[in-house]
Amino acid sequence: MNIVIIGGVAAGAKAGAKIKRLLPDSSVKIFTDDTHVSYSSCGLPYYIEGNFEDYRTLLVRSPEDFKASGIDVYLQTKVIQILPDKKKIILENLEQVKYDKLIIATGARPKYPMIDGIETTKNIYTLRKIEDGIKIRDIMRKSKNAVILGSGYIGLEILESFVKNGVHVDLIEHNGSIMPRFDYDMAMIIQERKETSCYKNFNVHLEDTICKVENLSNKVLVHTIKGKKIETDFVVLCSGVTPNVEIAENAGIKIGETGAIWVDKLMRTSVEDIYACGDCAEKTHIVSGQKVWIPLGSTANKEGRCAAINAAGGYYEFEGVLGSTVTRCLNTTIAMTGLTEKDAKSVGFSPVSTIIKKYDRVAYMPEASELIIKIVADKITGLLLGGQAVGSIGADKRINTLTTALLGHLTVQEFGNNDITYAPPYSTTIDPLLDAMNILCKKINREC
Amino acid sequence: MNIVIIGGVAAGAKAGAKIKRLLPDSSVKIFTDDTHVSYSSCGLPYYIEGNFEDYRTLLVRSPEDFKASGIDVYLQTKVIQILPDKKKIILENLEQVKYDKLIIATGARPKYPMIDGIETTKNIYTLRKIEDGIKIRDIMRKSKNAVILGSGYIGLEILESFVKNGVHVDLIEHNGSIMPRFDYDMAMIIQERKETSCYKNFNVHLEDTICKVENLSNKVLVHTIKGKKIETDFVVLCSGVTPNVEIAENAGIKIGETGAIWVDKLMRTSVEDIYACGDCAEKTHIVSGQKVWIPLGSTANKEGRCAAINAAGGYYEFEGVLGSTVTRCLNTTIAMTGLTEKDAKSVGFSPVSTIIKKYDRVAYMPEASELIIKIVADKITGLLLGGQAVGSIGADKRINTLTTALLGHLTVQEFGNNDITYAPPYSTTIDPLLDAMNILCKKINREC
Repeated sequence: MNIVIIGGVAAGAKAGAKIKRLLPDSSVKIFTDDTHVSYSSCGLPYYIEGNFEDYRTLLVRSPEDFKASGIDVYLQTKVIQILPDKKKIILENLEQVKYDKLIIATGARPKYPMIDGIETTKNIYTLRKIEDGIKIRDIMRKSKNAVILGSGYIGLEILESFVKNGVHVDLIEHNGSIMPRFDYDMAMIIQERKETSCYKNFNVHLEDTICKVENLSNKVLVHTIKGKKIETDFVVLCSGVTPNVEIAENAGIKIGETGAIWVDKLMRTSVEDIYACGDCAEKTHIVSGQKVWIPLGSTANKEGRCAAINAAGGYYEFEGVLGSTVTRCLNTTIAMTGLTEKDAKSVGFSPVSTIIKKYDRVAYMPEASELIIKIVADKITGLLLGGQAVGSIGADKRINTLTTALLGHLTVQEFGNNDITYAPPYSTTIDPLLDAMNILCKKINREC
Repeated sequence: MNIVIIGGVAAGAKAGAKIKRLLPDSSVKIFTDDTHVSYSSCGLPYYIEGNFEDYRTLLVRSPEDFKASGIDVYLQTKVIQILPDKKKIILENLEQVKYDKLIIATGARPKYPMIDGIETTKNIYTLRKIEDGIKIRDIMRKSKNAVILGSGYIGLEILESFVKNGVHVDLIEHNGSIMPRFDYDMAMIIQERKETSCYKNFNVHLEDTICKVENLSNKVLVHTIKGKKIETDFVVLCSGVTPNVEIAENAGIKIGETGAIWVDKLMRTSVEDIYACGDCAEKTHIVSGQKVWIPLGSTANKEGRCAAINAAGGYYEFEGVLGSTVTRCLNTTIAMTGLTEKDAKSVGFSPVSTIIKKYDRVAYMPEASELIIKIVADKITGLLLGGQAVGSIGADKRINTLTTALLGHLTVQEFGNNDITYAPPYSTTIDPLLDAMNILCKKINREC
């Protein structure tokens, strides 16, 4: 059996390793236009920050590791076409490679916003691949100032890396709050935490965006739509990503309503013997049941595994995602899972919510710090829909308690008596999550 | 409506406050033989450790707070009899008090082991009430050495308080491992962590116990069954607690198989209009469905609330407990939920288990530290049964993720794709919990 995989960062690498374990006698080939295979792109901001010096720390498996387990990895080898009828792919050098099963794991790429002069201006970066990380780290170490466009996860993680390295940052966000995926009330809390952080060497520019960049001797002059001019050493564009679906689309593979490759629960595309997984593939949201595109490394791993099992002739359903994320910015933990209140409304729930501000452990413990949790539930059924948290280390783990509740389709009443561990160094007698449930129960006129 | 509550630490205090809110016109009286009402006894080890100087920090509501909300609290007032037929209780001074609804929240008391000379030897303590905490803190501050009998939660928490205050401790445990509620393999790991801790001023004596104590000028001479003689400044007995059920038993109220007061899901006892909650009451284990007695402050709060709602004429079922606990000892976090492997066997499951030893976040993050998690599941159904964790701060929160899975009766397959948050400062790409599920799926011959 010939297995061909296009792409090898997270989903593709995982799929390759898994399928070879399941079918040791098969031929497994991974083609990637990248210079590296099987690495943690989520770790790039921590490489830039300087937690480790050697970028190879980010590599999960090297091409040699793959070779040792009988998998052939072709780096910097672009696949230009899929021929489903002939069950072949065509490489850039026009070589044709036969497959019995094809797994598409082409990932995503940064979105380039419309900015005047972007083609001709030096020192404009995006962060996706290892080379990007190396370049950004190198210029950061030589710089005093940077501009970051976009305040989602990557934007905030890079902000942290830069300011901790003494580089002043101008963070530009076209929405009215940073971290716009969060509900506005929680985004405002994240913003307050930034403002009261011990790090002061950054400015946030809201409701603004970059309209033009130009070279200015060794610097970049950034123009914003509000008329600001910012002279800076370099610019990082973190304004989102877009799935790499062109090769699939050109082969007649169905693209979903979200713009990513449509797949079923077995990670099968619309074309026989072709699977898709990772950031190029559409996902199903476990709470809403709707198709979404939330590209995350942790999901890519699970989907790669699922695609491999099914491509190898097994049967395994991937239930979907909750959109759970965590990021650290200026030592604040920001995490969420499930639907925000705005998401919940837009998919037809009748959300009620509560925000609990409380110490994360008993107030007399020296380590006690503020935790702010928002919980969203459906008013009609009491079903838990999602949660957002801002706090110190541990805020994310309270969100994981909630991911499990969403996975189990629990209601606020059911969660209300959750036997959560308690001791003064770890929690308040009534955990903030349980406080939230009690308040939500009242809001939906139920006792819990 | 006359509501009478016997006991006022956690369950009784909570029940009183809740019922007064539900029935503002009722008369609510709390009788307690204690000198304090509504306090956090779980906080006593942290008071002893010196995290705060004023014990009143532990008070949740003062008698004056209760008075202000229209609740009468009678401190140091022992109830000697319940007359269910007359719907009256009798106080020590023989005064009779009528009730329409009675809530028993008499709690538990330390078990005194059979020790020769215990009656006549000075400086032997137990820790349950605020006065106990004050006495132990005072003698600790004047002492160089202490003996602790018992290495459950309280024993280990006091060990930490003492050694952090420079007091050398001899910890005596009659079982073959410390923390005997854990499975032996995990208890061994807890023990290793103790041995490699930065604190060295303690000895652990396993498979031994105190058989005799005697005064030795201002010291205590402790004799163990293995023939050791330990000269020490004082002794703290932490060999478990026993429920205060005598007053209920004498009134003909049914005592359950566990020795605590039998209650239904509404916290009703076998006698009409009498409820029981907190440490004196039996609980139902959510995983095994069996009656258990696991006395915990967090449960007492929930049960007090449940008893109050039902006594006030509402309807609310308390589903039961998972036996979730966390403790910190020498800066190690030790947490568990659900059934251990030995528990699971004894109640008729066919347990399989796995132990994952892994960093709690990506290894290159400077804060990464070892996390050891054991997960137990049923081989036949894949149902998750319980988990135990040892690690740094955060080990407990991973256990809470599992409490929610137990509450939702999830299987290892279902949990296997839990969309847990991931970023390098918080977790590994595949969270240790998910690694455990993958291994367990293999052990039960299922894919996940």
